[in-house]
Amino acid sequence: MKERLLVIKIGGNIIDDEIKLSSFLKDFADIKDKKILVHGGGKLATSLSARLGIEQKMVDGRRITDAETLKVVTMVYAGYINKNIVAKLQASNCNAIGLCGADGDSMLAHKRTNPVIDYGFVGDVDAVNVPLLKSLLDQNVAIVFAPITHDQQGQLLNTNADTIAQELAKGFSHEYDVCLVYSFEKSGVLMDANDDSTIIPEITTAHYQELKSKQMIFAGMIPKLDNAFAALNNGVSKVIIGKAEKIKELINGKAGTAIVNE
Amino acid sequence: MKERLLVIKIGGNIIDDEIKLSSFLKDFADIKDKKILVHGGGKLATSLSARLGIEQKMVDGRRITDAETLKVVTMVYAGYINKNIVAKLQASNCNAIGLCGADGDSMLAHKRTNPVIDYGFVGDVDAVNVPLLKSLLDQNVAIVFAPITHDQQGQLLNTNADTIAQELAKGFSHEYDVCLVYSFEKSGVLMDANDDSTIIPEITTAHYQELKSKQMIFAGMIPKLDNAFAALNNGVSKVIIGKAEKIKELINGKAGTAIVNE
Repeated sequence: MKERLLVIKIGGNIIDDEIKLSSFLKDFADIKDKKILVHGGGKLATSLSARLGIEQKMVDGRRITDAETLKVVTMVYAGYINKNIVAKLQASNCNAIGLCGADGDSMLAHKRTNPVIDYGFVGDVDAVNVPLLKSLLDQNVAIVFAPITHDQQGQLLNTNADTIAQELAKGFSHEYDVCLVYSFEKSGVLMDANDDSTIIPEITTAHYQELKSKQMIFAGMIPKLDNAFAALNNGVSKVIIGKAEKIKELINGKAGTAIVNE
Repeated sequence: MKERLLVIKIGGNIIDDEIKLSSFLKDFADIKDKKILVHGGGKLATSLSARLGIEQKMVDGRRITDAETLKVVTMVYAGYINKNIVAKLQASNCNAIGLCGADGDSMLAHKRTNPVIDYGFVGDVDAVNVPLLKSLLDQNVAIVFAPITHDQQGQLLNTNADTIAQELAKGFSHEYDVCLVYSFEKSGVLMDANDDSTIIPEITTAHYQELKSKQMIFAGMIPKLDNAFAALNNGVSKVIIGKAEKIKELINGKAGTAIVNE
């Protein structure tokens, strides 16, 4: 049987809350399995951009990463947030290493091309350097991944943290029994988006088709669930969705929603 | 015979000059030996602080790292500069990984205590995690080190890049035949600070005592040379001082000043 690897993505709501973040990192440090933490950006990049007078460019409701914004997110995600998370994990006796995709060529991407919108310096992932990252996991070092990739031609690229987590989970599925955890502000997949008690503990493919056709799942969850099933179809054993505050319960199957192949 | 490891420190004058930096990184990528690059900060941290209205605090001509300044240097050194250097090395087919001292607990430090001046979040180095860093070098990955350390209690600390380079060189001296290269704006150790042609090709301990007693070395070089001899006394094989633009010649003994035990 393969060893378990947890790939855990934490969202901006945790990054922005110092107390919640510290508490989460203590829980993360206690996890005995091999583990990778993928963090998003939080509000710091936005507030730093504002302080520097860098305008956020939006096209059709989509954020555009221009050169100045890339500079800010590289500083904030791969610098400030990443290194502070690593330092805090060290304080909890969890040896951790902070990386972005350029480091060790750990995640190669290409600049997104789109016939309609120029997203700027946004990267779509092509490959994960599994052997190098595995050599770190084998030394019992947790990996903390910032959502920045590179194109092997010297260009850093901004990449969605959910995608990074998914690509890492898929990339490691030959080596480990991979469990991908998306933590966000809700307790899991809910029947009623406003009622945390309507959580669905487990969703199989068949169940998902039924829920979707009966419109029993709120629309905002559908892209996340489609991604979860895509991960399962690419070798990931299990996807769990739930609150970062309950990370211990999430990985023990005592909270959140587990997405599984039937 | 032990394998050679080069620990190369580049100063701010290279970091600030995009053309010189690119050219240096191409040369660095071509080096066949195991290698570590330690970079300083350059002017970007200062200009970013100014744009953010963060005042540079100086006490007795010494820069103080307060909490806001630490945030800026963490973003700029460990984020922007470090990741851009790594991405550029990847473009030159040199697999590189960017780290600060918190990453993999690679460099442990403690906050400097001084009875007179409170330097703020400045770290003095205690230990280097040689096995983890060696595991990367053994995979032919070059290490790019940002001048930020940690105290194992969750605090990042600003640390002088010359010191980082020296500690890495000393730390690896049991494992490798270590050559420490300090690159700066001069061609080497000069008899006359204003005349590049007065370079001294080699300095031994005895020679250094003589030069110092006869005041034939300009005062600004003395701390650098004292550090160089301290490194030699701690197992480092050779220290080379010279221009980053001539890195190939420096490591082949065809430029710069070599500091050696007689």
